[in-house]
Amino acid sequence: MKGLKGNIIFTSSAEKFEIYENSYLVESHGKVYGIYKELPFNLKEIEIQDFGKSLIIPGFVDMHFHAPQFQNIGLGLDEELLEWLEKYTFPEEAKYSDSEYSKRLYTNLAKQLWRNGTTRVVLFSSIHTSGTKILMDILDRAGIGAYVGKVNMDRNSPDFYVESTEESLTATEEWILETKDKYQLVKPIITPRFVPTCSEKLMKGLANLAKKYNLKIQSHLSENEGEIEWVKDLHPEFDSYGEVYDGMGLLNENTIMAHTVHSPEDEIELLAKRKAFSAHCPNANYNLSSGIMPVRKFLDAGVKVGLGSDVGAGHQIGMYKVMSQAVQASKMKWFEGGKVGKCLSTSEVFYMGTKGGGEFFGKVGSFEKGYDFDALVIGDEDLGETDFRSVEERLQRFIYCGDDRNIIKRYVAGKLLSEPTTEREVAAAL
Amino acid sequence: MKGLKGNIIFTSSAEKFEIYENSYLVESHGKVYGIYKELPFNLKEIEIQDFGKSLIIPGFVDMHFHAPQFQNIGLGLDEELLEWLEKYTFPEEAKYSDSEYSKRLYTNLAKQLWRNGTTRVVLFSSIHTSGTKILMDILDRAGIGAYVGKVNMDRNSPDFYVESTEESLTATEEWILETKDKYQLVKPIITPRFVPTCSEKLMKGLANLAKKYNLKIQSHLSENEGEIEWVKDLHPEFDSYGEVYDGMGLLNENTIMAHTVHSPEDEIELLAKRKAFSAHCPNANYNLSSGIMPVRKFLDAGVKVGLGSDVGAGHQIGMYKVMSQAVQASKMKWFEGGKVGKCLSTSEVFYMGTKGGGEFFGKVGSFEKGYDFDALVIGDEDLGETDFRSVEERLQRFIYCGDDRNIIKRYVAGKLLSEPTTEREVAAAL
Repeated sequence: MKGLKGNIIFTSSAEKFEIYENSYLVESHGKVYGIYKELPFNLKEIEIQDFGKSLIIPGFVDMHFHAPQFQNIGLGLDEELLEWLEKYTFPEEAKYSDSEYSKRLYTNLAKQLWRNGTTRVVLFSSIHTSGTKILMDILDRAGIGAYVGKVNMDRNSPDFYVESTEESLTATEEWILETKDKYQLVKPIITPRFVPTCSEKLMKGLANLAKKYNLKIQSHLSENEGEIEWVKDLHPEFDSYGEVYDGMGLLNENTIMAHTVHSPEDEIELLAKRKAFSAHCPNANYNLSSGIMPVRKFLDAGVKVGLGSDVGAGHQIGMYKVMSQAVQASKMKWFEGGKVGKCLSTSEVFYMGTKGGGEFFGKVGSFEKGYDFDALVIGDEDLGETDFRSVEERLQRFIYCGDDRNIIKRYVAGKLLSEPTTEREVAAAL
Repeated sequence: MKGLKGNIIFTSSAEKFEIYENSYLVESHGKVYGIYKELPFNLKEIEIQDFGKSLIIPGFVDMHFHAPQFQNIGLGLDEELLEWLEKYTFPEEAKYSDSEYSKRLYTNLAKQLWRNGTTRVVLFSSIHTSGTKILMDILDRAGIGAYVGKVNMDRNSPDFYVESTEESLTATEEWILETKDKYQLVKPIITPRFVPTCSEKLMKGLANLAKKYNLKIQSHLSENEGEIEWVKDLHPEFDSYGEVYDGMGLLNENTIMAHTVHSPEDEIELLAKRKAFSAHCPNANYNLSSGIMPVRKFLDAGVKVGLGSDVGAGHQIGMYKVMSQAVQASKMKWFEGGKVGKCLSTSEVFYMGTKGGGEFFGKVGSFEKGYDFDALVIGDEDLGETDFRSVEERLQRFIYCGDDRNIIKRYVAGKLLSEPTTEREVAAAL
């Protein structure tokens, strides 16, 4: 057991922050044991680290991230979507057939996740099982919790970056068997890229694998209007894009769908009925001119919504930045939609980026008793006055103005994470 | 004379970047003397600093910034505009009657501007001439170029933060006389807060002072719909908000108007006709749910457009961040407006944040011969691959993903700026 002392703030519900000033957050067996203003007699002997005025918050949960696009963030954002995919995305992903490249870049990635306090992440890898396994190894060593998906695509893909249906399914099953019980916090996730690049046979095969091994599933849904038209052309037999996934057996309580910017009402209802998650990725939706997801509508319909960086279309890894972008996006949606309803509040986006997305991982993203002990310590002295500001104001200011320098400690499932070391650093130290 | 060697990139026009790889940017008497691939014989002896692969770009120009709101960035952004003003803005600005507070906070501000590479800035101060003079002193010592305005407001203001018309005009003239020739790069600017808080007599008096002393003028225009209605109620004799300023004698080629989100066509034409500048502040317009300025329309009409952080409604000081937000905002405007016309490109927002706004200062914001030598050196090794990326790609990546750590040198009018030291640091060193 151990305890962290500081100003504890989190969201057990989206409506408001729960705040415990100058209190102890106590851990036992990797879980939250309790929060105490004064330690009770039986806990007097546990090891305590006192972080003074610092904030203690749950670790960030990123629900959508393309690991092999990490090297491309901030590039090509004047291009149209298809040019961007052809010029930047696919050629870069194809490089991850190379183990050395994968090791080097994925170590950088783990380091950036660590720096930015992302303690749990749902990742698309590339189509390569070798690179995917390297990524899982690196995340496991870094102590970051993750679902990692080998990407499947057997149609409408570039010649240099495509699989046959058979090899895709065979490789996926082999990879599942090799990795599903290998790590504590890193698990495989079934990952059809999206309907246009996956044949019916592939999608159904993947749904069978998900069922057979009780796995999570991720894909993209209703991100932009052209894509939706394309899916309609490919599958006129279904009423909506979401129903294609549903018809293939890929939509259930283990599924997360990224974007859902343009989901029609019945698709939103379907997501709610299937208890699937939606990953809101405002930054990427801006960069690719996709539009703004009507998050309030999804929340009102009872869909579980988390936040995603969507690196590399999104250029910001820090989920605190995605949170402020989500508030800004909701304000624009509100404005452009005739000022109806309510914008997202800071507590709502914080909830989405911690407990909301965390539910996909289990009891993650909150400091309620029994939740995984995922915590960040935030030092905000350089962001302005701390004495005359409330804990909630200080958290808001960190979300808007802070960066990785303000994150001074990261814990996942009770374990303090040290900074992942890149090969360049190892070489330099020799 | 001296020279900086590196990868030089800037925008002499908005359409495209001008790039000189591995070249020398030569300075003479604080101005750009020339760019050379090889130094000519007569320049062989000048002092050269070689920055290797680093990028060399013009310093950033911030056209709209409320200095006394700096302490409030990232706070209160769930509040409505009026609550936000009452709870955060006005009480904070009122504190700048205190010289000690002004000194401490404005030194922090200079440090943040320095860190983020803002080499020229147009500032609103508070209504206090004492605090305004302290701010000007601090900026002068820091070597940052600035127009600084003592704010004027004599109606519709809180009891604790308002002036009489007479005292406002008298104090302003005294302050002008004291400061107009005092500094090389820091100058006073006439600053009616905005129409609702300035009586006709005050506005006309300020216009006279501007004319008498040949001064620049700044204010707010058409930021949000409620404000526009208010101005219409106050001045039914004018056809638009912009025409009120024009009628008072405040709109000419020396004027910069912040926001112009909801300017009707004839107001845009008026700005173009008067050769006034417009400061686009996307970040603040998001945070206050004001809407998105149709920048393309202004550019097409021939209005000169710069960028503003609009701290404190904007929470980002770095103009590189404002640039990427401006691209994102234009993409949303494009999307919501039925996908008509073209979004802003990276070179266009870079131009606005350097030469576009720089024109307000004279020959500023470009590396053309005779321009003030305002330059930043950008080291981007930690942002990803540098060898296989073009100089333009690397600049784009810095704009999207970089931060103050990537800015390794700052020059203004030929002078290398050292980091402003806060009183806390001075005290700690003793």
